Amino acid sequence: MSQRIGFAGLGLMGSRMARNLLKKGFETTVWNRTRERCLPLEQEGARVAPTPSELGERSDVVVACVADPPAVERLVFAEDGLLGAARPGFRYLECSTVSPDTTRRVQAALRERGADALEAPMTGSKNGAEHGTLLFMTGGERAVHEELLPVMMAMGTKALYCGAMGQGSTMKLIGNSFISLMLEALCEGIVVGRRAGLTIEAILEVVQASGFASPYYAFKGSAIAKRDFSEHFAIDLLVKDQGLMLETADALRVPMPGLAAVREVFQSARAQGYGREDICAVVKTLERAAGEPQV
Amino acid sequence: MSQRIGFAGLGLMGSRMARNLLKKGFETTVWNRTRERCLPLEQEGARVAPTPSELGERSDVVVACVADPPAVERLVFAEDGLLGAARPGFRYLECSTVSPDTTRRVQAALRERGADALEAPMTGSKNGAEHGTLLFMTGGERAVHEELLPVMMAMGTKALYCGAMGQGSTMKLIGNSFISLMLEALCEGIVVGRRAGLTIEAILEVVQASGFASPYYAFKGSAIAKRDFSEHFAIDLLVKDQGLMLETADALRVPMPGLAAVREVFQSARAQGYGREDICAVVKTLERAAGEPQV
Amino acid sequence: MSQRIGFAGLGLMGSRMARNLLKKGFETTVWNRTRERCLPLEQEGARVAPTPSELGERSDVVVACVADPPAVERLVFAEDGLLGAARPGFRYLECSTVSPDTTRRVQAALRERGADALEAPMTGSKNGAEHGTLLFMTGGERAVHEELLPVMMAMGTKALYCGAMGQGSTMKLIGNSFISLMLEALCEGIVVGRRAGLTIEAILEVVQASGFASPYYAFKGSAIAKRDFSEHFAIDLLVKDQGLMLETADALRVPMPGLAAVREVFQSARAQGYGREDICAVVKTLERAAGEPQV
Amino acid sequence: MSQRIGFAGLGLMGSRMARNLLKKGFETTVWNRTRERCLPLEQEGARVAPTPSELGERSDVVVACVADPPAVERLVFAEDGLLGAARPGFRYLECSTVSPDTTRRVQAALRERGADALEAPMTGSKNGAEHGTLLFMTGGERAVHEELLPVMMAMGTKALYCGAMGQGSTMKLIGNSFISLMLEALCEGIVVGRRAGLTIEAILEVVQASGFASPYYAFKGSAIAKRDFSEHFAIDLLVKDQGLMLETADALRVPMPGLAAVREVFQSARAQGYGREDICAVVKTLERAAGEPQV
Repeated sequence: MSQRIGFAGLGLMGSRMARNLLKKGFETTVWNRTRERCLPLEQEGARVAPTPSELGERSDVVVACVADPPAVERLVFAEDGLLGAARPGFRYLECSTVSPDTTRRVQAALRERGADALEAPMTGSKNGAEHGTLLFMTGGERAVHEELLPVMMAMGTKALYCGAMGQGSTMKLIGNSFISLMLEALCEGIVVGRRAGLTIEAILEVVQASGFASPYYAFKGSAIAKRDFSEHFAIDLLVKDQGLMLETADALRVPMPGLAAVREVFQSARAQGYGREDICAVVKTLERAAGEPQV
Repeated sequence: MSQRIGFAGLGLMGSRMARNLLKKGFETTVWNRTRERCLPLEQEGARVAPTPSELGERSDVVVACVADPPAVERLVFAEDGLLGAARPGFRYLECSTVSPDTTRRVQAALRERGADALEAPMTGSKNGAEHGTLLFMTGGERAVHEELLPVMMAMGTKALYCGAMGQGSTMKLIGNSFISLMLEALCEGIVVGRRAGLTIEAILEVVQASGFASPYYAFKGSAIAKRDFSEHFAIDLLVKDQGLMLETADALRVPMPGLAAVREVFQSARAQGYGREDICAVVKTLERAAGEPQV
Repeated sequence: MSQRIGFAGLGLMGSRMARNLLKKGFETTVWNRTRERCLPLEQEGARVAPTPSELGERSDVVVACVADPPAVERLVFAEDGLLGAARPGFRYLECSTVSPDTTRRVQAALRERGADALEAPMTGSKNGAEHGTLLFMTGGERAVHEELLPVMMAMGTKALYCGAMGQGSTMKLIGNSFISLMLEALCEGIVVGRRAGLTIEAILEVVQASGFASPYYAFKGSAIAKRDFSEHFAIDLLVKDQGLMLETADALRVPMPGLAAVREVFQSARAQGYGREDICAVVKTLERAAGEPQV
Repeated sequence: MSQRIGFAGLGLMGSRMARNLLKKGFETTVWNRTRERCLPLEQEGARVAPTPSELGERSDVVVACVADPPAVERLVFAEDGLLGAARPGFRYLECSTVSPDTTRRVQAALRERGADALEAPMTGSKNGAEHGTLLFMTGGERAVHEELLPVMMAMGTKALYCGAMGQGSTMKLIGNSFISLMLEALCEGIVVGRRAGLTIEAILEVVQASGFASPYYAFKGSAIAKRDFSEHFAIDLLVKDQGLMLETADALRVPMPGLAAVREVFQSARAQGYGREDICAVVKTLERAAGEPQV
């Protein structure tokens, strides 16, 4: 593991991913907008960089896992941003879910300095980050994908190359659109089913015995049955991703009427104060829309 | 197999289900609104009844698999309808997907004559009917469910008891709501993904490697990749079921904004002439909405 | 005024319409499902019929203004229904908002007995009924339209002939679709505008100074500003009409994505207990969806 | 008219607005991204500036009417942008429809240089611009509103002060949301109505005799009846504005389910190639969704 890794963004996902890099023996330096979040990893052996540019200077590859396009802007393009450390051979692995536009802009800027980027948004949520079983969807040069495979394989189990820069992000956003509609189906089904006298368990049993079964329904359905809305993937983030998908579709001139409708339900969930809860908390918004008392 | 079975409704599903009853050794009489459809089964050993009431007279159990609530009306309540043959001990197994209201009305009428009904809508589409691997979701008396298990097991592999009459139908309609949103997610994803340069195969690979994977995506995705829109489950029928679900939700006072939005896309598919094609033909409607030339 | 008028259905609209007939000097007999509602009109000079069939026997023209298709079923086709009184020359003026299917079925049944019907759903809500300024949209034979003009003109100021039986109802349902989308625009605008610091008054001033001004915005906007949700047109009834419109569109194979989306918001309003309030109470549902505390 | 006016953006609206300034005797300099568009106005007496910064230098007030936020970026913040000419007393009148965020950012930058801005998006479309009957919705300092009234009154008949910078833009976006839903109501009504045998003329007659009448329905309805889709307000621009409204609502945490649904229909219209046609061309998209042959 001769590569020195920098890790930017130590949230729910990033902190777990950085930990796996450490465990696999990578020399790892971390940076986070608020320094406190660096402390646990520092105790486990990570170094802490005071700025993104210093993070870049101390690393051969910087992995980023931040919240949204403005956070990437700050990380890369700010005065003390990563770009200042870009040099031939430097690599940037963008694991954040952002728009294809953003990743293309970052790549272009890095290339001007002889560096390069790979976008590698991932799926697997908190558990996948924890256990190192994430799935990466990459976009960029195939050679850079190959080059960064060992880094990705320290955090996940699979990396699918999707094509040019932007196509990995698009793939990720499409995936989150699937999640959005599946969760809406599950939650609408639960609300109407319960009112008709069906239990969540009975609904899940039928769904899971059907051709349209999915591990996702078991995962989210049992959380809902337990009223456990602790964050695996926060509503705030999904609403952001839905917005990026619709923006991308807008640029491509493709209507997405299903996603657009479902997004407004998640918007309502966020407006009702569930933004930091898991995306399955959208069931509470549908319950309220159906006139149930808040619990 | 001492029970004599009657089978009403020999469409895509019904003809295959009746054949399985025959194969399993049940003495089977069939009836269909248009007599031609009875011929193949007649050659395989089924008797043919000229009217529903005679079908009922010659059978201990009548299984129905017809298109919609008006078809059930005609079958049961017409002058020559099944009701005329209802008598103590007679059983009616309603496998059609209709509204809870309809099945409750049929049950009430049968009970007045000492007979009873079980609703048992099923999932599995054409292949499940062909291979006898259907899943039934039943509603009615549990004793009647037990009593009719052997008949169901001749056509399927599982029968889940959902509760009182109406709850099986509601469960089935919820299942078709899942299918509707999942197919919309798949097709929106395919249209936007292809425009961004992603192939269907790449999208499916990512989806199937994700936590939200489902055999359904593989099944429908590969049909779309081959542009094979031959009927497994027709758009006409799904639009009908979506309408029954929204009607049921209306009666229960539950908004279903996701399903309502998605239904209009399927409505458009039907209006554009794809009603007799498989539900995955909805991708053509989304392609047209995105300005692609018709193919 | 030699014609004897029967009036069935003394709700918010019907009681006011019947009163206008009385005032204009028509000999008027009334019937209502619950008899209490007849008392005020009885005191003003109306006779009361115990059943629809007796109402029909005592009248040359029966005007109906009932809640929904099942109420028309009961009124016309029940054992003691109007149909029993149908005879050559008898006229039925259907002012209820029901589906084209319903009015066509009623007409066909009456014609078999030498009678005929005109559908004449109306717009103008409570104030129009009170002041005799309703607008009728009629469907049926033009000759019957002409014949019943004096009756309509006793309750309104205009009757537009729309064509064959069913076309008047369709026109009415289209009108209620306009109302639905306009009210949604108004209420979404108010909720988002207020959060941005704009007052309802400012929004209305701009709207009413624009090319898309409408008296409807002034009427409903000022009610919302005063939080006066007393019934002019109840949410329960609009949700019913939206359902009839979507059913009619379904039969005609026409998607209505805007109406379908908006209907779910009104569904939610009804589920939240605002069904008997005025349709502008939908603003409360949108406020709740936006996370505002209930007031 | 001692004020020297600069005008940036000579599109469908801007060219007509600039002409009115000239006619009213203002000394007017114009700038457009593509110079050809300046020629007609040059012949009518306007000077032409080669860059926005020179436009600013030669003017006391610069009025802008450009397509979208990136166009404002270019106009104001580019190297040769207006900002270079900002000085104490300089005024910028932003008539483009952009997001509140954009106008606030422009104002802040100008203020740093002692200048100030007023946002004044307008309604009235092509005819209003032509005849000088526009309605402006302003945001910014009230004193600046008063100061710029004479300029606005040379192009329109009314200027409503809406509050702080951003509130004028929000008001405008709300107005375009009204337009979106009203047009959807009109076009859905026309498509379903015609299929039921009703003419556009009959629908308009009823609508215009109703409480929800609006001059807008007459204007757009008669264009649709004539199949005249020439641009008054282009679909491209409305889709852009709908996006800005949803983005603004997103920032304010307010779901807008009606607008979100309707936007996808307009998205489809744009994808189908109607982007440069008038917004009433959305009727063609709804016709295609309903299976009608393209004409």
